[in-house]
Amino acid sequence: MYLTMNRFRIKPGHEATFEAIWKARDSQLPQVPGFVSFHLVKGPAREDHTLYASHTVWESEGDFQAWTQSEAFRAAHKGAGSHREIYAGPPELELFTSVQHIAN
Amino acid sequence: MYLTMNRFRIKPGHEATFEAIWKARDSQLPQVPGFVSFHLVKGPAREDHTLYASHTVWESEGDFQAWTQSEAFRAAHKGAGSHREIYAGPPELELFTSVQHIAN
Repeated sequence: MYLTMNRFRIKPGHEATFEAIWKARDSQLPQVPGFVSFHLVKGPAREDHTLYASHTVWESEGDFQAWTQSEAFRAAHKGAGSHREIYAGPPELELFTSVQHIAN
Repeated sequence: MYLTMNRFRIKPGHEATFEAIWKARDSQLPQVPGFVSFHLVKGPAREDHTLYASHTVWESEGDFQAWTQSEAFRAAHKGAGSHREIYAGPPELELFTSVQHIAN
């Protein structure tokens, strides 16, 4: 498993706007080679922000890297940078490799 | 999907020790109701630490909460608190609910 998570801190009261932006996105992910699954996940609410993360699983790091160079990536990120007023800070991208797996 | 991630910052040079601790753990997770999957994931290396996270998927928050009250949880965390010298700080538990899902 190769996991990419982009962490977003959203100002309180703007959660619905943030979720709507993602739902309106032209992700094209199901057509991308090596794509396994995507979730937008909502984390803890703090006094000054609510944490969200995009949570995307890939078959390999190479599949993720190829996607970032693709037309599908450009389409998915069209309009990123708008709605600046809802963010409590810049997003933080974290890339993870699995070192241990326990299946059900 | 209900996702629990415990974030660990490991001092540089202690990564192999940290991974060995997890591999030796008596997790019992496959027997826990509502357990879906577990990964120990390795994230970015910074100057003062390497980020790891336990990444556990549950069918529901209730399944996770029940596990934290169980004998299996106590067994899995026996010995937690040892090896303090490898940690650059306390672990940070983050609980996530999925608000959008795109499947392959």
